[in-house]
Amino acid sequence: MNGHLRQPHRASRRGLLTAAGGLLAAAGARVPGSGAATGRAAGIEAFEGVHQAGILTPQQSHCYFAAFDLTADKRDAVVQLLQAWTDAARRLTAGQTAAPMDASLTGPGPDTAEAIGLLPSRLTLTFGFGAGLFVKDGKDRYGLAGLRPEALIDLPRFNGDQLIAEKTGGDLSVQACADDPQVAFHAVRQLARLAYGSASLRWTQAGFSSRPPDGTTPRNLMGFKDGTQTPEQPDRAVWAGDDGPAWMRDGSYLVVRRIRIALEHWDRTKVSFQEQTMGRHKYSGAPLGLKNEFEPLGLDRNDADENPVIPDNAHVRLGNAAANGAAEILRRGYSYNDGANFTAERWPPWRQGMEYDAGLLFLCYQTDPRTGFVKLFGTMAKFDMLNQFVTHTGGGLFACPGGIRQGSFLGQRLFTAA
Amino acid sequence: MNGHLRQPHRASRRGLLTAAGGLLAAAGARVPGSGAATGRAAGIEAFEGVHQAGILTPQQSHCYFAAFDLTADKRDAVVQLLQAWTDAARRLTAGQTAAPMDASLTGPGPDTAEAIGLLPSRLTLTFGFGAGLFVKDGKDRYGLAGLRPEALIDLPRFNGDQLIAEKTGGDLSVQACADDPQVAFHAVRQLARLAYGSASLRWTQAGFSSRPPDGTTPRNLMGFKDGTQTPEQPDRAVWAGDDGPAWMRDGSYLVVRRIRIALEHWDRTKVSFQEQTMGRHKYSGAPLGLKNEFEPLGLDRNDADENPVIPDNAHVRLGNAAANGAAEILRRGYSYNDGANFTAERWPPWRQGMEYDAGLLFLCYQTDPRTGFVKLFGTMAKFDMLNQFVTHTGGGLFACPGGIRQGSFLGQRLFTAA
Repeated sequence: MNGHLRQPHRASRRGLLTAAGGLLAAAGARVPGSGAATGRAAGIEAFEGVHQAGILTPQQSHCYFAAFDLTADKRDAVVQLLQAWTDAARRLTAGQTAAPMDASLTGPGPDTAEAIGLLPSRLTLTFGFGAGLFVKDGKDRYGLAGLRPEALIDLPRFNGDQLIAEKTGGDLSVQACADDPQVAFHAVRQLARLAYGSASLRWTQAGFSSRPPDGTTPRNLMGFKDGTQTPEQPDRAVWAGDDGPAWMRDGSYLVVRRIRIALEHWDRTKVSFQEQTMGRHKYSGAPLGLKNEFEPLGLDRNDADENPVIPDNAHVRLGNAAANGAAEILRRGYSYNDGANFTAERWPPWRQGMEYDAGLLFLCYQTDPRTGFVKLFGTMAKFDMLNQFVTHTGGGLFACPGGIRQGSFLGQRLFTAA
Repeated sequence: MNGHLRQPHRASRRGLLTAAGGLLAAAGARVPGSGAATGRAAGIEAFEGVHQAGILTPQQSHCYFAAFDLTADKRDAVVQLLQAWTDAARRLTAGQTAAPMDASLTGPGPDTAEAIGLLPSRLTLTFGFGAGLFVKDGKDRYGLAGLRPEALIDLPRFNGDQLIAEKTGGDLSVQACADDPQVAFHAVRQLARLAYGSASLRWTQAGFSSRPPDGTTPRNLMGFKDGTQTPEQPDRAVWAGDDGPAWMRDGSYLVVRRIRIALEHWDRTKVSFQEQTMGRHKYSGAPLGLKNEFEPLGLDRNDADENPVIPDNAHVRLGNAAANGAAEILRRGYSYNDGANFTAERWPPWRQGMEYDAGLLFLCYQTDPRTGFVKLFGTMAKFDMLNQFVTHTGGGLFACPGGIRQGSFLGQRLFTAA
């Protein structure tokens, strides 16, 4: 069961009423919104709960993902950072400024202010711990090495990986999702300010997901419906098992991949070949040879020549957990769009030139990455026909602890255990 | 007067009803939306008119800007491209696919499909011509050299410019604005496909602008209200004068600048110094020493020591057209957010490291860039206190012809005149 109750409050982030030049009143208080925004956009997602929000929370339209490197020498500094992040996250997700505003102008301010007046926008902040929190360069910096979960492996190198070091890894992760890109970025920026001296930005990636208003499955940048198949029992697919360390109870493992899509190549490819590659029809989303999006894949269907209707190396076949002996994973993907830059494609016709730097910010949650993403993608990386159009250029694996309770802070059980 | 009537229709981009595996009916037709979206998001902005849409059109929440290099050898190929772009733009802005869908799967498809089901989202497509359309490397490729407007100058190098060649210039420009980032990107992608063989992408930049639902002035990533001052008579500020070539009548000149903001530096700066830099109070948006955002700047106000209340090198003083003998310009700015990358800051404390690649996609329209942006920014580039926080890293100047009438195509008057 998801521990979060969604509270679609109407609230505004104005949070401060301005009087004379910069003098503030009603500092940081939530003020009922007067705007025309819909209930959905205005909503507040509960920050506290059994599980962290942002995992089973229905996807918001925007995401800003950030990974940080810890620079703190001392364990206490890490604890202080996580406490400060928790306090700020409680406020930010409620549509408030990162800290109460005050009238003083002699410092850099408790909040950078660009979200004042915007709605809470269902902001969720989901935190994760990378392997580097436990051991980095062979060093147990914070006395946590013994508590590193076995499931928090070093991801293997997958076939075709072209990971850019500056877009990979990180000791801490923050997934900020909101129905407003400025609200998501604002939240991470406040956390980054609180991290001065103890952690620094390693990489970030913005993403978006546009959902058709009629509730049909959204399409990714390849023009195909993405997200037709979701775990029937998300709670079983997502939450870490009891065999791991106690501090990860009610938590989940996040695998992130920044996947560049060769859109120019894709856009010049016949639709029939796109469909063979995916194993689904493009416009309807139905499995190849079928009519309706939500029909079972029917992976054992053969054509008149006794060839499988859905090819052996089609994306949906290889990505199907049941067919590959893998555990189900919960995908939470966003498209990304970073403009254009010079690229040499990896596959024929080996096009070179200015191409879109766009694709998929793939996020997935699971009970254990070894039986989830690693198992599933290990096969896909070798055989998936889609590989000729996609390149993994960054990402990471993060252990996202259980939810934060009233009066506690992020990772408290980890630091109490050690 | 703005030649556009805004028609806040409810319409959906489903545009096609899927039957058996990929077989299509009702190809490309507009279908009434069944979704929960607001009238604003669902709206259609008229494509045809005296002026191009996307200039005086109230700003949409997202922008995708793209510049193309012409590779066509022949003038006819350019005309054909502009005709194809016009046809597609008519459809796309009406919430349709780029071309009518058909049942054939043997080609790459008339549309890449990722906007099917999304609302028209007030999409506007605004086209511009760079100097390279008229003369490139000293060559008059298309017999248009004599029709290059005097106002379409080569932008001078401004103080502090750090323009990246791969993010600067272009022979053609497309500004796609929509209330959905996927709709804006989708539109440019369709145009890019139509350009295969005659023009190729040179650079692109995505942007966003989050407007408070209560109608107050939006804040940029510096946390200040941005857009308090707009021309009192936008029509006088924007449309090209009669002294230019006839084909530019009812058109406008667009200056684009990709402005990276040193957000880390800014975020560590005292609010009082931020306010001196801007010349406005941060939270209220009022001119320094005043209480209300919309009060006149009062640039001649002095303090008790006879020093100007708004410093001589404050951003608002130098950016004030009237005070600088410049013509007014219409700003249409978006924030951009391209993740983080390694940067060496230009100013003390000369910080180096992974920093946000974020800032402002500055777009402004004017009757003549020589009396508008060039005059205004020439002074600002030298003296503006804000320069220690911002770096111009790309951009261009484009002549945006007048609106497209029924039965005509983009730039028709230019090619008919030559």
